[in-house]
Amino acid sequence: MSGNGDDETMIRTPEEAARERHGDIYDEDGSLRSEYLDDVTDAIDRGDAERLKERVADLHASELGDLLEVLQPDQRRSLVTLLGTDFDLSALTEVDEAIRLEITEHMSNDQIAAALGEMESDDAVYILEDLDQEDQEEILAKLPFVERVRLRRSLDYPESTAGRRMQTEFVAVPPFWTVGQTIDYLREDTELPESFTQLFVIDPTFRLLGAVDLDMILRSKRSVKIESVMRDTLHPIEAEMDQEEAAQLFEQYNLLSAAVVDQNNRLVGVLTIDDVVDVIQEEAEEDIMRLGGVGDEELSSGVLRTSRSRMLWLLVNLFTALLAASVINLFDATIQQIVALAVLMPIVAGMGGNAGSQTMTVTVRALATRDLDIHNAFRVIRRESGVGLLNGLVFGVLIGLAAGFWFQDANIGGIIAAAMLINMIAAAFAGILIPLLLDRIGADPAVSSAVFVTTVTDITGFFSFLGLASWWFNIH
Amino acid sequence: MSGNGDDETMIRTPEEAARERHGDIYDEDGSLRSEYLDDVTDAIDRGDAERLKERVADLHASELGDLLEVLQPDQRRSLVTLLGTDFDLSALTEVDEAIRLEITEHMSNDQIAAALGEMESDDAVYILEDLDQEDQEEILAKLPFVERVRLRRSLDYPESTAGRRMQTEFVAVPPFWTVGQTIDYLREDTELPESFTQLFVIDPTFRLLGAVDLDMILRSKRSVKIESVMRDTLHPIEAEMDQEEAAQLFEQYNLLSAAVVDQNNRLVGVLTIDDVVDVIQEEAEEDIMRLGGVGDEELSSGVLRTSRSRMLWLLVNLFTALLAASVINLFDATIQQIVALAVLMPIVAGMGGNAGSQTMTVTVRALATRDLDIHNAFRVIRRESGVGLLNGLVFGVLIGLAAGFWFQDANIGGIIAAAMLINMIAAAFAGILIPLLLDRIGADPAVSSAVFVTTVTDITGFFSFLGLASWWFNIH
Repeated sequence: MSGNGDDETMIRTPEEAARERHGDIYDEDGSLRSEYLDDVTDAIDRGDAERLKERVADLHASELGDLLEVLQPDQRRSLVTLLGTDFDLSALTEVDEAIRLEITEHMSNDQIAAALGEMESDDAVYILEDLDQEDQEEILAKLPFVERVRLRRSLDYPESTAGRRMQTEFVAVPPFWTVGQTIDYLREDTELPESFTQLFVIDPTFRLLGAVDLDMILRSKRSVKIESVMRDTLHPIEAEMDQEEAAQLFEQYNLLSAAVVDQNNRLVGVLTIDDVVDVIQEEAEEDIMRLGGVGDEELSSGVLRTSRSRMLWLLVNLFTALLAASVINLFDATIQQIVALAVLMPIVAGMGGNAGSQTMTVTVRALATRDLDIHNAFRVIRRESGVGLLNGLVFGVLIGLAAGFWFQDANIGGIIAAAMLINMIAAAFAGILIPLLLDRIGADPAVSSAVFVTTVTDITGFFSFLGLASWWFNIH
Repeated sequence: MSGNGDDETMIRTPEEAARERHGDIYDEDGSLRSEYLDDVTDAIDRGDAERLKERVADLHASELGDLLEVLQPDQRRSLVTLLGTDFDLSALTEVDEAIRLEITEHMSNDQIAAALGEMESDDAVYILEDLDQEDQEEILAKLPFVERVRLRRSLDYPESTAGRRMQTEFVAVPPFWTVGQTIDYLREDTELPESFTQLFVIDPTFRLLGAVDLDMILRSKRSVKIESVMRDTLHPIEAEMDQEEAAQLFEQYNLLSAAVVDQNNRLVGVLTIDDVVDVIQEEAEEDIMRLGGVGDEELSSGVLRTSRSRMLWLLVNLFTALLAASVINLFDATIQQIVALAVLMPIVAGMGGNAGSQTMTVTVRALATRDLDIHNAFRVIRRESGVGLLNGLVFGVLIGLAAGFWFQDANIGGIIAAAMLINMIAAAFAGILIPLLLDRIGADPAVSSAVFVTTVTDITGFFSFLGLASWWFNIH
């Protein structure tokens, strides 16, 4: 490790290289640099294919994806046309579905087929699965036999399964080979996948026997048999397994890649951590969106699609709001007598809604990460009741004092304090029990918990506050 | 690959092995199986160390972590005591912070030091960083020199940086070595890290020159020089870089591991995807929690801590609720005359709040994933205005008809329709502009957007509805 000082000036450090290029296209906030973007759009507008090709030649697929996302639709199409066969189709795995479809619709099936041929099978499937049946068949028909069979094998598995997300390229060796034989094979075979981190060990019928990490191969003497360095704890994943479940196995066991097997334990592919990271991201994203009452819209969706996707949720909320209003209507006489009640009632309902949302958020998330299950559900319910009681007391006293002073009426102060306490406890129970119940009956708690929880807190809030007031003032 | 049929009966397939063991402790829902749990708690309660050791011997660190999380606090402590030196401390990287502290407080510093010695440096740092300064020093002092220096190096970097999360064990070779020399070195060196997926190439002063994936070593002839198979696009990460930023690089470039370098581009460690997956999870978790108005509480936190963590948010909401109430108070005379207004007003405010939350959720998430930036902000604002207008028209008509028929008054129907339209548009602008503004001034939009958005929609809702009504009925 000495005498290498001279090389320093010749080899540009990778950090410098990355900085230079990354600095070229991104600013400190991680947005595409305006100068770069202007340069690219100018080349597109002038139809200058040469300059455009030069500007995007070194881009990573995800960088090209970022670029596509900020361009205008017509610029996107021009870019694809101008780049022609130089367009890296794997960039489409990094963009919104709407943009992906827009671009694949713009391309001919011949173009798509040619581009797919150069991609890894998991990326190719990702793009193919969104196309309609007819285009899919036409494109597959244009591919070489081996690739066609591979892609079809993935496409035959249901959506969102491990089989859809897997890569069908992998390296497998028999258990009786030696490390030396294996290294020789790897040096000679020209059909190896682009990259791999483990070898699978299979029997002659492709049944999975184990796996060997590459570092084990490198540490072992040439004469060592594969079966003696093979691991048998590799958590194989059934091709039909839901991708979320597979992602959870990756997380739990810190896997980098895992064998995907069919029902007969035959190796059909490999699932890699980079695809799993995307799944984890998507799942978290979905939970956030659902809790916020948003469907599967995308940032690039138009006004109509977005509006439609949000309307159902608003419609459901309109009904529950009318329900809550009808509770208020029961007490119209009381309100007419004491207008302060109308002024104060949204506070009781609103605070309950906020407290309920807090508990619900924690519950929904803990259910999603499997941290909450039958073993600790009772403990968490007990805790939430305690929190509801405590916060109810604190905020009951606070709002009681505030309302009492505001309207110079100790009765109103006492009534709102009691109503706040009642609603905070209701909020705690609704926040924990509704998601648990939805989960129990197999519904996704993230989707519908919020509506039920706020319905409970609105109705309890209005009913307890106005009810207590009408009872108290009638008997005095 | 033939003649291997006989082995089949001898080698238990890994799938069978995994199923058997996994099936032993988890049920289909992914919860720990009750029988297993009863068995373990029984062994703990009887103080049967032998049986307990046998039951947990094969557990993966994350499985032992799951077990710890569902046990009662006193059972946890007994388990640690009974297992003694057999307790796998890395299980603590898989549990809530509260449980981690509870267990480390129960263990002696000698015990912790002995256990840390057997762990990878990133896991050891994860456990050490939560301890107080004094215990940290005492434990470090008990470790062998090399390990102490390694751990201190990580601990010297600020919390939540790549330097804290990195592993300080890695394999580095000089660029002038051949593939053959490298393989020989790997076969002979007994101090190699437990597992690795790439080799780093460095100069004599430890400056990073590049990296080589293990599959490249295996594919290349023994005579090939390392510098000719080395990649230079490996996105090195500065040790001081925030872990979130590092995670984004991993996601964008599908990295499995990345070199961590100091300010002089000297290699100090390696960041691996499994740690990054945890970071990604934590970030998404944080966003969900913050949007739900929940601080950094954990499922295992007690009533007091949980209550306190949620109180601030509720307190802020109490103030904004009082603000909204004071708007209603401006129109007390109008409400006294027409009680229907009090009945209907929460609908206008509530629907605005829901629509605002939808827009806000999308905006906050898009900002977090960097999908929303200056290049498309204007496009998204325009879309959200369109959505607000459209949903305002739709729900204005719906609620107008419903209210008009309910109270048999076309005036009230018209007024609520107009107020709904106004509030939906206000909701759209608040939902997109408030998070954008908070992000612009460097605040976390997930934390405080919700308060501001609902304040806007409550006040706009009450003011527009009651204001329009008081104006309309006064001039008639």
